[in-house]
Amino acid sequence: MGKGLMVQKFGGSSLANVERIQNVAKRIVSYKKKGYDLVVVVSALGDTTDELIKLANRINPEPSEREMDMLLSTGEQVSVALLAMAIHKLGYEAISFTGIQVGIITDSSHTRARIIKINTDKIKQELNNDKIVIVAGFQGVTFNQDITTLGRGGSDLTAVALAKELNAKECEIYTDVEGIYTTDPRIEPKARKLEAITYDEMLEMASLGAQVMQARSIEVAKKFNVPIHVRSSFSKKSGTMILREVKKMEDVVVSGVTVNKSEAKITVCNVPDRPGIAARIFKELAVHGISVDMIVQNVSHLRQTDISFTVDKIILPKVIKLTKQIAKDIKAGDVLQDEDIARVSIVGVGMKSHPGVAAKMFEALAENRINIEMISTSDISISCIIRKRFAELATRAIHKKFALAK
Amino acid sequence: MGKGLMVQKFGGSSLANVERIQNVAKRIVSYKKKGYDLVVVVSALGDTTDELIKLANRINPEPSEREMDMLLSTGEQVSVALLAMAIHKLGYEAISFTGIQVGIITDSSHTRARIIKINTDKIKQELNNDKIVIVAGFQGVTFNQDITTLGRGGSDLTAVALAKELNAKECEIYTDVEGIYTTDPRIEPKARKLEAITYDEMLEMASLGAQVMQARSIEVAKKFNVPIHVRSSFSKKSGTMILREVKKMEDVVVSGVTVNKSEAKITVCNVPDRPGIAARIFKELAVHGISVDMIVQNVSHLRQTDISFTVDKIILPKVIKLTKQIAKDIKAGDVLQDEDIARVSIVGVGMKSHPGVAAKMFEALAENRINIEMISTSDISISCIIRKRFAELATRAIHKKFALAK
Repeated sequence: MGKGLMVQKFGGSSLANVERIQNVAKRIVSYKKKGYDLVVVVSALGDTTDELIKLANRINPEPSEREMDMLLSTGEQVSVALLAMAIHKLGYEAISFTGIQVGIITDSSHTRARIIKINTDKIKQELNNDKIVIVAGFQGVTFNQDITTLGRGGSDLTAVALAKELNAKECEIYTDVEGIYTTDPRIEPKARKLEAITYDEMLEMASLGAQVMQARSIEVAKKFNVPIHVRSSFSKKSGTMILREVKKMEDVVVSGVTVNKSEAKITVCNVPDRPGIAARIFKELAVHGISVDMIVQNVSHLRQTDISFTVDKIILPKVIKLTKQIAKDIKAGDVLQDEDIARVSIVGVGMKSHPGVAAKMFEALAENRINIEMISTSDISISCIIRKRFAELATRAIHKKFALAK
Repeated sequence: MGKGLMVQKFGGSSLANVERIQNVAKRIVSYKKKGYDLVVVVSALGDTTDELIKLANRINPEPSEREMDMLLSTGEQVSVALLAMAIHKLGYEAISFTGIQVGIITDSSHTRARIIKINTDKIKQELNNDKIVIVAGFQGVTFNQDITTLGRGGSDLTAVALAKELNAKECEIYTDVEGIYTTDPRIEPKARKLEAITYDEMLEMASLGAQVMQARSIEVAKKFNVPIHVRSSFSKKSGTMILREVKKMEDVVVSGVTVNKSEAKITVCNVPDRPGIAARIFKELAVHGISVDMIVQNVSHLRQTDISFTVDKIILPKVIKLTKQIAKDIKAGDVLQDEDIARVSIVGVGMKSHPGVAAKMFEALAENRINIEMISTSDISISCIIRKRFAELATRAIHKKFALAK
C-alpha cells in the first residue's frame, strides 16, 4: 500500500462497448492491487457526444449553448456510473461523481468553459475510504449551478487539473494509440514511439496537427509541472511521458514531424505597401473571431506586395467573404484561395541550439523536388506549406533526413 | 396574461422521437400564448430508461443502487435539454433544470427515494423572468448531493409535488391514452372515458392494475388536494380530472372495471387451524419483503384449513420456495401454485351507500358461467379471482351489467 495517487483518464474509444468498459475496469483494479490510490476520469462512451450533437441539431440547428452543455454532460455521467458498476463486479469499491458533485467550478462560457477552481474535499474523503474515485470528465458547473463543458478534449483537462489539485504522482492519459510518435505511423511505418517529450514540443505538435491530446490540458500540465503519460488502453506497453525536461535532450534536435491538411491558403494580391496595412487586415479578421495561422508577406515590387495567410478550411467561406471586403476597402487586388495545400512541420527543443536545422529540412524537400510555398518558424518548430499531394512524401523524406526511426 | 401557473408532465411515449418532442413544444407554447405560467416536467425519451437498465445489467447483474440512479437520471436530463431547444426554436424562452439544480431533496433510498422537500427559488425566479421552466422528472438529490430516483412512474410524483409546492391551478399529466376509462378499451370497445374520478377511486384502480398513473403520486395529490388532469399528448380533447370529490357522485355507484392478469395464486393446504398460524405465514413473508395481495382462508374441516393468497408473478419462484419452508415449519400440507388466474374488480366511491353491488357483480359472472375462486372487498372496491381465460368476458359482462357505457 501507499504507492501514492495516480490520475487515469480513459477516452471514448477505450469505453466504446461493454467489453472495453470491463477491460478498463480490470486495468484500474490492477493498479489498485499494486497499492495506488486512484482517481479515474472518463469521457462519454464511443461516439455518444457526436450523436447527441446530431440529435440536438435536428431539433434546433442553433441550440442554446447552456442547453447543449446540459445535454452533452449526460454522456460522461453514463460512463462514470457504468465504470463504477464494472469495478464493483470485480469486487472493488468505487464511487462516481459528476462535475457538479465534485465541484469543478468554471466560468459561464458554455461549451468552452474555463476551470476556476476544483473542490477536492469529496474526492479526498472517498480516497480515505479506500475507494476508487471516478469523475466525469469534460464537465463543470458555474457558481450559479449551471452545467458547463470544457470544449473538445475537455476530459484531458479535467484529468490534468485534478492531478494538479490532488498532487498526483502522474496523470495517465489512455487513448487508442500507443503514445506520441516521431510522425504519424499511418504515413511512415518506420515512425518511432517517443519515450519522452517536453510540454513545449507536445504543445507545438498539438497545434501543428497531432491530435493525441488537447492543447489546453498540456498548457495546464506545463504550468503546474504535472507529469503526463500518454498510452494505449489496449496494450500493457508504456507510452510516452510528457515532462518539463527530457534527459539526453542535447542529442535530440528534432523530436517529430507533423503534417496538417486541414488548412487553406488565402492570398491578397497587390496590397499597397505602406505601414499599417497588414495590421488592418488581421485586426479586422480578429474582430470577427477568425484565428489566422501562418502569415507570409513577400518583398514588395512597385510599392505593392502580396500577403498570404492560412486558416482552417471549416471557416474558409466566411474568411473569403470578409477578406474580399477588406481588400476592397484598402484598395488591394484580387483575393485568391487555395485548398490544395499541406503544412509539414518539424518540432524539437534541440533546434534552438543547433544551426542548420532549417536548411536540412528544406534540403529533404528539394531532394524530392517538392516546392516550398510558405515558410514559418517558431522557437522550436519550422513549418513549410507545400502542395497537398506531396504531404506524405515530404513527411517520409524529412523523417528519414533527421534519422528519426533511429 | 396572468392566468396562473400550470404544471404539465409529459411521459416517455410523448417524447419518443424528434417530431413528438416538437409537438410537445408546440403544445406548451400554445398554453404560454394563452397566458399561463408554465412548469414542465419530463420523463426520459421513449424506452431510454429500459435500455439503460439493460446496459447496466450487462455490466453488472446486481448494480449498486447509487450508481443505477446516477445512470438512469441522465435520461431525463437529455429530455429537458432537447425540449428547451425545441421551445427556443419556436421563439419562446425556456430553461431546463435537473433535480439537483432545482433542489428536489430526497432521502437516500436509492431507486425508490422519497421527496423530503423542494426548493422552489430557482423555478420562481425563472418564472418571474417569464421563462418556461422545464424540470427533469423522476430524480432528486440527497442532502449529501447524491443523485436519487423516485421509482417507476416517478415523474408523475415530481409533477404533483411541484404543483403542490408552487400552488399550481392544475397538474396536467400527458400520456398516450385519452384519460381514465370505465375499463380497458382494448377489452371493451364500449368503454367510456370518465370526465372525473376521485383520488380514492384512482388509487384503487391503480393498485388493481390500471397503469395510467403512479399510485404514490395520486396519494400526494390527494393529501394536498392537487387537481390532476390526465390526458393525451396526441389529442386536443380534454381527458379525466382526478379530484377530491366529483359532482353527481351520488348517482355513480361503480366508476370502473379493472382487470389484472399479473398475479399468481398460492395455496397452502391442510394448515393446522389454531390461533397465530396465519399471522406466522404472512409475517414470515413480510420479513422477506414480499408484498401479498388478496388473502382468503376457507372454513376449517377437521381442524385443518386451506389458506390462499396472491402475489405478483415476478416474485413467484422466490415466494414458492419460502412458503414451502414455512409450510414445513408449521406442519401444513402441500403448497400449490396457480398462474392461470385473473383478478377482475369494480371500483366506485358510491358503492359504500348502495347495497347489492357485490351481488350484482357476482350475478354478471354467474350469467356467463364464470366461477369465482376468491373474493376480496375494500371500502370502495370488490375483486374476484377467476380463471384467466375468462378475464375479458368477465370484464365485458360486468361493464354491461352496471351500464358503464351509458
